[in-house]
Amino acid sequence: MLIKSVLRPLLAGAAILMSVPAYSQPSGGFGRSPQVNPDNTVVFRFRAPNAQDVRLSVQSEKAPVRMEKDARGSWSATIGPVKPDIYPYSFIVDGVQVMDPGNRYYFPNERFKGSLLDVRGDSSLIHSMRDVPHGTVTYEFYPSAEGTTGTVLVYTPPEYDKSPKQKYPVFYLIGGTTDTEETWFKVGKADLILDNLIAEGKAKPMIIVMPYGNIEARVAEQKGGLKPADPADRESEEALARSKTFERDLVDNLIPYIEKNYRVIANSKNRAIGGFSRGGGQTLRTGFGNLDKFAWICCYSAYLSNTELERDFKGVVENPKRTNKKLKLLWVSVGDEDFLYRQTTGFIDYLKEKKINHKTLISTGGHTWMNTKLYLASTAPLLFK
Amino acid sequence: MLIKSVLRPLLAGAAILMSVPAYSQPSGGFGRSPQVNPDNTVVFRFRAPNAQDVRLSVQSEKAPVRMEKDARGSWSATIGPVKPDIYPYSFIVDGVQVMDPGNRYYFPNERFKGSLLDVRGDSSLIHSMRDVPHGTVTYEFYPSAEGTTGTVLVYTPPEYDKSPKQKYPVFYLIGGTTDTEETWFKVGKADLILDNLIAEGKAKPMIIVMPYGNIEARVAEQKGGLKPADPADRESEEALARSKTFERDLVDNLIPYIEKNYRVIANSKNRAIGGFSRGGGQTLRTGFGNLDKFAWICCYSAYLSNTELERDFKGVVENPKRTNKKLKLLWVSVGDEDFLYRQTTGFIDYLKEKKINHKTLISTGGHTWMNTKLYLASTAPLLFK
Repeated sequence: MLIKSVLRPLLAGAAILMSVPAYSQPSGGFGRSPQVNPDNTVVFRFRAPNAQDVRLSVQSEKAPVRMEKDARGSWSATIGPVKPDIYPYSFIVDGVQVMDPGNRYYFPNERFKGSLLDVRGDSSLIHSMRDVPHGTVTYEFYPSAEGTTGTVLVYTPPEYDKSPKQKYPVFYLIGGTTDTEETWFKVGKADLILDNLIAEGKAKPMIIVMPYGNIEARVAEQKGGLKPADPADRESEEALARSKTFERDLVDNLIPYIEKNYRVIANSKNRAIGGFSRGGGQTLRTGFGNLDKFAWICCYSAYLSNTELERDFKGVVENPKRTNKKLKLLWVSVGDEDFLYRQTTGFIDYLKEKKINHKTLISTGGHTWMNTKLYLASTAPLLFK
Repeated sequence: MLIKSVLRPLLAGAAILMSVPAYSQPSGGFGRSPQVNPDNTVVFRFRAPNAQDVRLSVQSEKAPVRMEKDARGSWSATIGPVKPDIYPYSFIVDGVQVMDPGNRYYFPNERFKGSLLDVRGDSSLIHSMRDVPHGTVTYEFYPSAEGTTGTVLVYTPPEYDKSPKQKYPVFYLIGGTTDTEETWFKVGKADLILDNLIAEGKAKPMIIVMPYGNIEARVAEQKGGLKPADPADRESEEALARSKTFERDLVDNLIPYIEKNYRVIANSKNRAIGGFSRGGGQTLRTGFGNLDKFAWICCYSAYLSNTELERDFKGVVENPKRTNKKLKLLWVSVGDEDFLYRQTTGFIDYLKEKKINHKTLISTGGHTWMNTKLYLASTAPLLFK
């Protein structure tokens, strides 16, 4: 009977949810899960009378939190006070990762399923919704690799539609492994961060282009024949080939599409590239491989090995004067608990040794989107100046 | 150990997924779950070695499908051949509804969590991706009820940016109960349906505005104090008040925002309203309440009761000549297995009896987004002509 009551919503469509009993009711009502209290403690609730073990995995906490079951089969846990920020989380129900059914805000990802905890605090957070002019984010299709149709999100700044003769610089911004083209928008809040920085006069109005990083998966989805990648593999021939596919799609397909369809200043001084995690590797490879196209390179929580640099980007590392002349900014940031901390600081040391100009930010914390937002907010004010 | 291995991805961020063992691997690899075979049979896979009972709930099937577990703890089921369409589905794991971790395409919803099965077939489906000019879908913020910031999606047709002097008619299109402003885009494929109809010369180029239907939830989210609604409640005073809140937000806030920021022909003959399920009720109430603003009303899988019509829309039903003069189209459609079939056909009978002009489509099937797409594809060609 329980099974049946849960199955009905999807079998019959949304509206029939009305007749579904409490078992499948979301935690906390519409849009109210998790419940953030005025003191920034947070209550999570999840109904699962049959479950033996339910835990909360939330990036504000160092370890999973055990949830307690009440007599009605509702599990709950309270955490905090939590420092205001946006934290991915999920429930682990007898070992199965589950989004919060009471929360409509997802972490867009092609592999894991997380929800978003938004602890707003006051409006001092740079990603907060403020009463400032807002840009927009547009879903575009573009002609991509191997005859496929690519998807990309494009942020235009608040004034874009009102200044029909103005042209803008462009920042190409790439998500991490298994992220989608939506992750910088929905988790990274690239739009709100730029709206706020622009309103404060701290960042120049710019267009932000958010591509999908996994071109092979898109080709396979539309044409068949996917060989799944091992995300642990960052430096093998196959990983390099995948990064090359991304680079070619960006340079040959996406940039021309953007420059045809948006009012863009189409030169290297007005073109930046940045990315998180795998997207940081794609950023470094695409940037170093195309110094004539990108004068601004922002690498968040990623690195290239000395071996790769000296093999594939010999001209970049062995002619620092030329590199320094071409690049207006090479930025590398990482958290002190990031699992790539050692490699990334090694990369920074290598840049120092080779006398390649760069800026760094070593933050606290790990390989998270909380840090990634900080890195965007720290670098966007430097761009195109 | 199993628990720990599943928790790590969210604790440490996407990239650390690389070190997670097979237990939390997605079914079918990146973007390949479910696996649609050339004969349109479909294989679903889900790894959950601890689970006792895993079922597949997919709207292509009349009943849930039992999945079978292999020695490695992977559950699978094969269905079909399935008629090409897009079907919401989820796994029911020991009674808990779970999205497919291997599939990046979600059903945006504030309550249940579903993934989308896309059986493409050939390109004859009106929602299929074809090699035609594409419009775009833009996320906008607008000043909404009670000082909140509203979110809305706006489709502009392919030629919009290239015809800077052209003005367009607008279709306001509302999702169902617990849907979000994204559901018409991601599940209803409003953009692709219009791209294709426009390319075939069947529909006039138009702007489609997709609002969020649950204004109270947004106010509560931003201001606190939500009273959760009972979705079963369609006709109580509270339900009517909620519908009124939506109507006021649409008419007082959203329409002025759209008409200020898009190139719109701002009169009733160029303004349509349509919606599915709860959105169909909102459509009828907002349309009948504002005949001077909307000359086109499209009601998908919804109805109003005679009691409400005669109490709240007396002028509409008792003066059919005036109503028929004001309305260029009143459309009502429903599936023959829809749980609202009887009420909706009763509504149609009432319109006949009152001599109010209308068009209908009674399709096969239930209260589903497969039908909703069909209704959009059937009505868009009629609009603004």
